[in-house]
Amino acid sequence: MDDCTLPVMNTGLRGVDIASSKICDVQGKKGKLIYRGFLIQDLAQKANFEEICFLLLYERLPKKDELKDFEQSLKQKRQVPENVFSFLKTLPIDMNPMDVLQMATPLLIQNDTNIGKSGVENTLYSAENLIAGMATITAAWGRIRNNKEVIEPNNDLNHAANFLYMLNGEIPDDETAHFFDTGLVLHAEHSFNASTFTARQVASTRAHIYAAISAAIGSLSGALHGGANVRVMKMLKEIGSVDKIDNYINNILSSGGLIMGLGHAVYQTDDPRALILAPMSKRMGQIANQPIWYELSRALEKKGKAAFKAKKQREIFCNVDFYSASLFYAMGIETDLFSPLFAISRVSGWAAHVIEEQFAMAAPKPSLYRPGAEYVGDYCGPDECVYTDLDER
Amino acid sequence: MDDCTLPVMNTGLRGVDIASSKICDVQGKKGKLIYRGFLIQDLAQKANFEEICFLLLYERLPKKDELKDFEQSLKQKRQVPENVFSFLKTLPIDMNPMDVLQMATPLLIQNDTNIGKSGVENTLYSAENLIAGMATITAAWGRIRNNKEVIEPNNDLNHAANFLYMLNGEIPDDETAHFFDTGLVLHAEHSFNASTFTARQVASTRAHIYAAISAAIGSLSGALHGGANVRVMKMLKEIGSVDKIDNYINNILSSGGLIMGLGHAVYQTDDPRALILAPMSKRMGQIANQPIWYELSRALEKKGKAAFKAKKQREIFCNVDFYSASLFYAMGIETDLFSPLFAISRVSGWAAHVIEEQFAMAAPKPSLYRPGAEYVGDYCGPDECVYTDLDER
Repeated sequence: MDDCTLPVMNTGLRGVDIASSKICDVQGKKGKLIYRGFLIQDLAQKANFEEICFLLLYERLPKKDELKDFEQSLKQKRQVPENVFSFLKTLPIDMNPMDVLQMATPLLIQNDTNIGKSGVENTLYSAENLIAGMATITAAWGRIRNNKEVIEPNNDLNHAANFLYMLNGEIPDDETAHFFDTGLVLHAEHSFNASTFTARQVASTRAHIYAAISAAIGSLSGALHGGANVRVMKMLKEIGSVDKIDNYINNILSSGGLIMGLGHAVYQTDDPRALILAPMSKRMGQIANQPIWYELSRALEKKGKAAFKAKKQREIFCNVDFYSASLFYAMGIETDLFSPLFAISRVSGWAAHVIEEQFAMAAPKPSLYRPGAEYVGDYCGPDECVYTDLDER
Repeated sequence: MDDCTLPVMNTGLRGVDIASSKICDVQGKKGKLIYRGFLIQDLAQKANFEEICFLLLYERLPKKDELKDFEQSLKQKRQVPENVFSFLKTLPIDMNPMDVLQMATPLLIQNDTNIGKSGVENTLYSAENLIAGMATITAAWGRIRNNKEVIEPNNDLNHAANFLYMLNGEIPDDETAHFFDTGLVLHAEHSFNASTFTARQVASTRAHIYAAISAAIGSLSGALHGGANVRVMKMLKEIGSVDKIDNYINNILSSGGLIMGLGHAVYQTDDPRALILAPMSKRMGQIANQPIWYELSRALEKKGKAAFKAKKQREIFCNVDFYSASLFYAMGIETDLFSPLFAISRVSGWAAHVIEEQFAMAAPKPSLYRPGAEYVGDYCGPDECVYTDLDER
């Protein structure tokens, strides 16, 4: 896209290309999501989360031995510093898990003897430390706030299965673990979304990767960003049964509201991730003996799309949150952990972007993101305001 | 500036106006810095930090009673939750104070019963809680890492004097307290610099202000942003005496290096803040019986400017960091606390920007900052790469 085909003023930079990147391609019209050249459909079907992390960080698929070494390296980093747990135990149990994760993540610095030294190898080490450690922190908070003992990582399990084990205290069945793994693969990367832009921006000041990832977690915590599948789940519960969908849709559309999980800023067709998540959601509902959430979602999708088209004369499509809600819910995961799940996956993409921002030679740019702003505040005349003393106001 | 007079691609958005704002005007050519219509020179001379906070947050100067109430309100928020201290005590004493501040700041949420509720009044309350609390956290870490007892806030003192008291355990003399107060005034706001842009960006997702400010601290921690006056101080120590300046400058300029504290991305004349800081640095050196740092700075400024002009045929100017280094150092503040000092001042500006981002009706923009990026990664042919199975690689 040409630099100046779109306005940049007060548009949130929406759709304005501001940088070049080799990490991810999102082709909104075609519904294609591509990590480092590979279609998400292929990756979701064939690769596990560890392999995706390698691909994102090291810019290519690993060979068999490399993947084994990488998995081993992540396992070695699952143990977090002891003061993480003592810290979490001092927090009120109703604290938002995203706030907890934003705060606790930089504690992983303590396991990183290279912190402060520059160099891409050191940052790759830190990235692995973050990917491994944030899963442990999230699971630990899921336990501690429910007054349960923290579970030590189990190195017989891969990243996805081990997370569910640390969260629930039980080794998940293979199918559930696989679905969760695929969920992590699907959420790992999505180009310059808001939280990734935050990570890049913090990294551009040459802050270390822990500062950048913590900031990105803060960005993801916003209701307009990471919280969408929580609202999908809330909506599904509110609807409650298929026979109430028509009424729900009518009320929403006539009041100018939105159907959660339908519509996306970039895709102009169904989000490719939603197409992968839907059958997993269906099967997970069967496994968990809770078919209702998938059934509701599927019926809502059909009826919602039709109603939207009838009313607005254009189509609307499923986004990633539409079926991830029912999938994660059927796994028994508490809804306010959905955003942290997003974070423990997306950290892989964030890390790749931090590294690209700080080390890529292909896209040199002057130091840091420092946009301008037009001052539209009032002066108090033709020039600056006159400061009157306190007694004279 | 017109939307498209400057390129936006891989330029770090440098100089590209992306939003309108009523908070701050920086006129680089004229060397003017303006908060809410008022020249920094007037504010630095006549207002204290609390008044600046009021001005930035409430968009006008306070009346006498309003300022009194505001000061009282900040005092009530100086006490931080007890688990802040217990948390800090678990940290390794060599942890970077900016990392500590980024982590600990969201703990202030616990004192904020309105968290999660929207509305500008609630966010203003949170802003005051952050301004008051971050000073306490910073001072506490300054004590704890030196194995000293945490000092309770003293509500007979204003914000600046109380910070120095909490840090040093002694009530500062009036002149030192006044200089520190003015230092806070000068660092409070500077338009869309990198950390402020981070704060706005996180706030644009509708994350709460604690998430946004924590992220901004992360951004400020970067070497290209908040750490400049630390490097000025390091340079001054390295030079050591006035007779070594010529040699130092020659070495730096012939190796293509930079003289720390000279040059600024926006100002094309001396930074107005440097002009205010210089005499304070001089006087503080006298008070502390350490005139060397100011003397070195002054001589380096003169010789450095002349050498730069002779070599590069253009002028270079002092930035804010050039004299704040020697000022804070003569106050006895440890150099790695310089960036946290910046943060406990700038939080006032960050908060004003968060509020403008989330609540200003004057500049409606579509939800969040979500720029585009041009994908320049390789495909493996005309289309996407073919995923080969692990065994076949």
